[in-house]
Amino acid sequence: MSKVSFKNDYGEGAHPRILQALIDHNMDQQAGYGQDEYSLEACDLIRNRLENQDSEVYLLSAGTQTNLIAIASILRPYEACISPESGHIATHETGAIEATGHKVLTVCTEDGKLTPDLIEPVVSLHADEHRVHPKLVYISNPTELGTVYSKEELIFLYDYCRENDLLFYCDGARIGQTMVHPEIALTLADYAKYTDAFFIGGTKNGALLGEALVVNRSDWQDHMRYHLKQRGALMAKGRVLGLTFQTLFEDGLYEDLAHHAWLMASHLRRGLVALGVHFLVNSSTNQQFPILPDSCIEKLSEDFDFYVWAPVENGHSAVRLITSWATRKKAIDRFLDDVKNALPLCN
Amino acid sequence: MSKVSFKNDYGEGAHPRILQALIDHNMDQQAGYGQDEYSLEACDLIRNRLENQDSEVYLLSAGTQTNLIAIASILRPYEACISPESGHIATHETGAIEATGHKVLTVCTEDGKLTPDLIEPVVSLHADEHRVHPKLVYISNPTELGTVYSKEELIFLYDYCRENDLLFYCDGARIGQTMVHPEIALTLADYAKYTDAFFIGGTKNGALLGEALVVNRSDWQDHMRYHLKQRGALMAKGRVLGLTFQTLFEDGLYEDLAHHAWLMASHLRRGLVALGVHFLVNSSTNQQFPILPDSCIEKLSEDFDFYVWAPVENGHSAVRLITSWATRKKAIDRFLDDVKNALPLCN
Amino acid sequence: MSKVSFKNDYGEGAHPRILQALIDHNMDQQAGYGQDEYSLEACDLIRNRLENQDSEVYLLSAGTQTNLIAIASILRPYEACISPESGHIATHETGAIEATGHKVLTVCTEDGKLTPDLIEPVVSLHADEHRVHPKLVYISNPTELGTVYSKEELIFLYDYCRENDLLFYCDGARIGQTMVHPEIALTLADYAKYTDAFFIGGTKNGALLGEALVVNRSDWQDHMRYHLKQRGALMAKGRVLGLTFQTLFEDGLYEDLAHHAWLMASHLRRGLVALGVHFLVNSSTNQQFPILPDSCIEKLSEDFDFYVWAPVENGHSAVRLITSWATRKKAIDRFLDDVKNALPLCN
Amino acid sequence: MSKVSFKNDYGEGAHPRILQALIDHNMDQQAGYGQDEYSLEACDLIRNRLENQDSEVYLLSAGTQTNLIAIASILRPYEACISPESGHIATHETGAIEATGHKVLTVCTEDGKLTPDLIEPVVSLHADEHRVHPKLVYISNPTELGTVYSKEELIFLYDYCRENDLLFYCDGARIGQTMVHPEIALTLADYAKYTDAFFIGGTKNGALLGEALVVNRSDWQDHMRYHLKQRGALMAKGRVLGLTFQTLFEDGLYEDLAHHAWLMASHLRRGLVALGVHFLVNSSTNQQFPILPDSCIEKLSEDFDFYVWAPVENGHSAVRLITSWATRKKAIDRFLDDVKNALPLCN
Repeated sequence: MSKVSFKNDYGEGAHPRILQALIDHNMDQQAGYGQDEYSLEACDLIRNRLENQDSEVYLLSAGTQTNLIAIASILRPYEACISPESGHIATHETGAIEATGHKVLTVCTEDGKLTPDLIEPVVSLHADEHRVHPKLVYISNPTELGTVYSKEELIFLYDYCRENDLLFYCDGARIGQTMVHPEIALTLADYAKYTDAFFIGGTKNGALLGEALVVNRSDWQDHMRYHLKQRGALMAKGRVLGLTFQTLFEDGLYEDLAHHAWLMASHLRRGLVALGVHFLVNSSTNQQFPILPDSCIEKLSEDFDFYVWAPVENGHSAVRLITSWATRKKAIDRFLDDVKNALPLCN
Repeated sequence: MSKVSFKNDYGEGAHPRILQALIDHNMDQQAGYGQDEYSLEACDLIRNRLENQDSEVYLLSAGTQTNLIAIASILRPYEACISPESGHIATHETGAIEATGHKVLTVCTEDGKLTPDLIEPVVSLHADEHRVHPKLVYISNPTELGTVYSKEELIFLYDYCRENDLLFYCDGARIGQTMVHPEIALTLADYAKYTDAFFIGGTKNGALLGEALVVNRSDWQDHMRYHLKQRGALMAKGRVLGLTFQTLFEDGLYEDLAHHAWLMASHLRRGLVALGVHFLVNSSTNQQFPILPDSCIEKLSEDFDFYVWAPVENGHSAVRLITSWATRKKAIDRFLDDVKNALPLCN
Repeated sequence: MSKVSFKNDYGEGAHPRILQALIDHNMDQQAGYGQDEYSLEACDLIRNRLENQDSEVYLLSAGTQTNLIAIASILRPYEACISPESGHIATHETGAIEATGHKVLTVCTEDGKLTPDLIEPVVSLHADEHRVHPKLVYISNPTELGTVYSKEELIFLYDYCRENDLLFYCDGARIGQTMVHPEIALTLADYAKYTDAFFIGGTKNGALLGEALVVNRSDWQDHMRYHLKQRGALMAKGRVLGLTFQTLFEDGLYEDLAHHAWLMASHLRRGLVALGVHFLVNSSTNQQFPILPDSCIEKLSEDFDFYVWAPVENGHSAVRLITSWATRKKAIDRFLDDVKNALPLCN
Repeated sequence: MSKVSFKNDYGEGAHPRILQALIDHNMDQQAGYGQDEYSLEACDLIRNRLENQDSEVYLLSAGTQTNLIAIASILRPYEACISPESGHIATHETGAIEATGHKVLTVCTEDGKLTPDLIEPVVSLHADEHRVHPKLVYISNPTELGTVYSKEELIFLYDYCRENDLLFYCDGARIGQTMVHPEIALTLADYAKYTDAFFIGGTKNGALLGEALVVNRSDWQDHMRYHLKQRGALMAKGRVLGLTFQTLFEDGLYEDLAHHAWLMASHLRRGLVALGVHFLVNSSTNQQFPILPDSCIEKLSEDFDFYVWAPVENGHSAVRLITSWATRKKAIDRFLDDVKNALPLCN
């Protein structure tokens, strides 16, 4: 029997309804390059959720592609991004932003979140032509650490950005977690109102592939399809993105899948808490960072796949466990059982 | 009843066996970013066909993406490509190559094909540091005009390139047409032997999406996954490319689909010839360029979609008709019938 | 005795008054990076000549640097230049424009000059996101072939550009020749009125080094010093450019030097015409392209340096002879004497 | 009477012998683009000092230009630099390195200096294709804070770099200070032996303009003139750089000028120490960072120009005072007198 993986939320294929849509429409002849009926309909479905008639939607195939095109399409050559030091564009995109010519200025932050107070010194320091001009603030919600910006925090950042002539961009690779989170409960309309652009992650929420980039400013939308084409993102077979996102946004499937992942994470967290386990970060998303004895981690690794995130102290380490739209409750129960059995032997 | 389209070879979804593979493996948990079992197996299947143990295979999501990454990954900043004036990188990729910093030097050629004699003056002219240094020769086989390089022509170009320290790269968006063409009959092993890199087009030959880049030199392969990641091409959901290409190369499906498109084009061409129609280009691939009276074209447009390629003379124009893996014989018969009926009225 | 060179117009140092200015102000402490008093004054002197209160002036160190910064500072990533096939940016700048990410679309033209009729097909062809978007028209005046745009031609191109939302940029490496040319008699104010940006070449008109970029649109001027700095053009020792251009524009020295070069070229041309020599191009600038027997060229090469431009026919070739601010009349007289002596022996 | 400036070391023109050389050779006709006799001779003179027959020398016009060309000429697209957080390329070059496509990874360091221990975690962290590949270590000697690497430290870093397949590059904008410093006494031969490339700063050591880039590896030298041309650094009027560096390296003038700046800084530092002043950084180069009462700084500002570097505490701030080849001893004496007079009133 192969191991169950909690390594990521993109290990399985796609929600079966997406595959069914591919089958149902397989022999329909459609226009290429994102101008098929499904893509147009998918973008309409998403736009209807945004309550912002200025917003435009673009379907892309992956997250780094989305970030680099979104950012490079609006910045002028001397302009730079501000990102948390742990931001995906700063750490895990192989210099994709720099490869388009733009510096990423990083800010130290313990929980992966930016605040106006953290941004302000960067803006102040960069005051003349000998330094880059910070123009875009990048956040991810939830962050790479599983922490979440509340609606108030989002508005606070957005207002700060507007007052300082900064663009506000949100990487929404796991944005669904902020929508189903009962205390956060952000809506797509909130993102359309309180960011200049953001993306709705499909890859990590049950899509076959792809992300939906939403741009809320007309100057940023200008000639966007040219940018997509130039960077290799305008697929002749755009229909596969269209059918994927049409299915995800037809009947609330997107939220259902995010909610399932969230429920599984909650079940996992509660189970671990009940066993006395502590956490590296207080995350209420589908990323959980429990701290376990190293010997216990070794034992669990026999049946489960996950990342050992960071050593903590006294022979303990934090691990990262990710649940997804495809996680089965019994897999979590089995994991909790194994922890329960292993823990007494470890201390 | 909607029109039948001969506009392109990527209007439908994917061969049903690909969809079945997606279904069969949907809930298998796999590693991301192209390290899933299917991608590894797909690359192995392709490599086995290459008869070149130095070759490496990479799966990408689209053609422009493949061209720009392949080319930018090997050229140094001052190096340039040589392309036919009609080459895809020169005309239809929105400056994607230039966006990575490299000039595309173009050569006039009537049939879309390069020869050493056409390349030589470009090489000679670019002799010092005030001009770019031509380093890579780009061809597509078949070309954008449906013409084809024979094995001898390929070898002739390859030898010229080696003698002149030029890299030889072949855009194989429709490479299948050169494999099933009875007089050309190029094999993937030929391409692995007589190019430095080429790609096997999936998009235009029945894939759900994607192309397989083959690189035959170790210096060109070096750190290729970094290039993919940096340009946004390394998809977490790489499994969809893996299953697609695994299916295409498991049992000769790739050639079967190319062969079907070729048969349909032959049927179409023979039918038109029998009706006395002439052609703009002598193409024996799945792109056909018949010359028809404009009034006839207008009539045909009622039931069929296709591109009007270029006006010719005396109220005639060339149209481009493309067949594909999904083209049905009866659609062509119906088209031929319509031509037969329309032609007498037009002259 | 070393040969006299007619190879170029930048072989000598600088007009002595420039050297004197360097000496006179050598120990004055000045601000760096182009904010010294001389640079400010030089820009003012030039601005006063422009009769366009929207124009701004920037001092740069060389022509390729000026072209690449001017062009890259205004184009968005998917935008391209249109240039004559013989344009300096297309042929002799080692892909500097492409290195900033932008395609140069070239137009065949026999005399090195563009017209609206030549530009129109390029604009029409580039109509969707699969092709670059032509945004800037590049000309040089005089051209690389010594031909000249008249004021009417300049206006005609400028009007066409405005009507088609194109930027109009003029490479003025030898712009002085168009100012002193009695029939052309373009003024800097003309250029400020009928281009969006242009540069006033110093390198080829007696400067120690440098060019003065003039930008006539505020959107193009925006953050220009950032662009200069980022591309390595903002010199701490900007004072040397300041003193150079202050001297050139204080008392009409710039025109005096251009005029001298022009007179020398006229003297040379008239002398050759009197000897029955024909010319490859009808140039009335400081570049002359006489056609001479190859044996005569060989003989002349013993005492003079010049480029053999192109073989013509019947054992004749065109040579390029360039005069400059520093050319002495007696050198030309000696050259004409040598031609006179050599010609009879050659035919 | 205008203020005396201690703001920088590039406020004056050039050492008079350089101006004399310009005059002496002004009317000599020379080849352009760095192939004039003076440039060739200057490069030879420098090469003779390097004791490394693999080294090549290139003359460029400014520091940012030199850094960006040197770095972009050797790195492949996915490769990155490691720099101290205070490094010039990280802070004061307007993203010039990123504009060529490369990330600058920064390391916190109190004194502006890197050590293998500081580099090691960056190298370890960047281990797969999701992150950039650190390839080049950037230092400046002296640093932006006036601190200096000793020969042992240089060798230690160089050895570490070689063992870890890293290129080692030294920004020598003020390299003369490390050559004349009696305890450091680095030679150009040391730099040629213990770096892969470095530059010899002219701008800040009495040159009219320019820097001399030295590259000690043949793979890094490859096609360097193409890189220079493409980035706008190959000046037709290269002769001015040639005459400048020929003069600086003919008779030890370069070291003489550096030594003068160093003596003036020593005189300044000793004078301030005698007055009981403390320093922010222990610098024995031509940059000094004394800490003075704010009211004293205000008083001094009436007669002197300098940067207020950073507030320290208790109403004190550090200022930056820079001496140069052109600093006069009596100006320093006057400054010391003013401090002496102002200090008692401030405490």
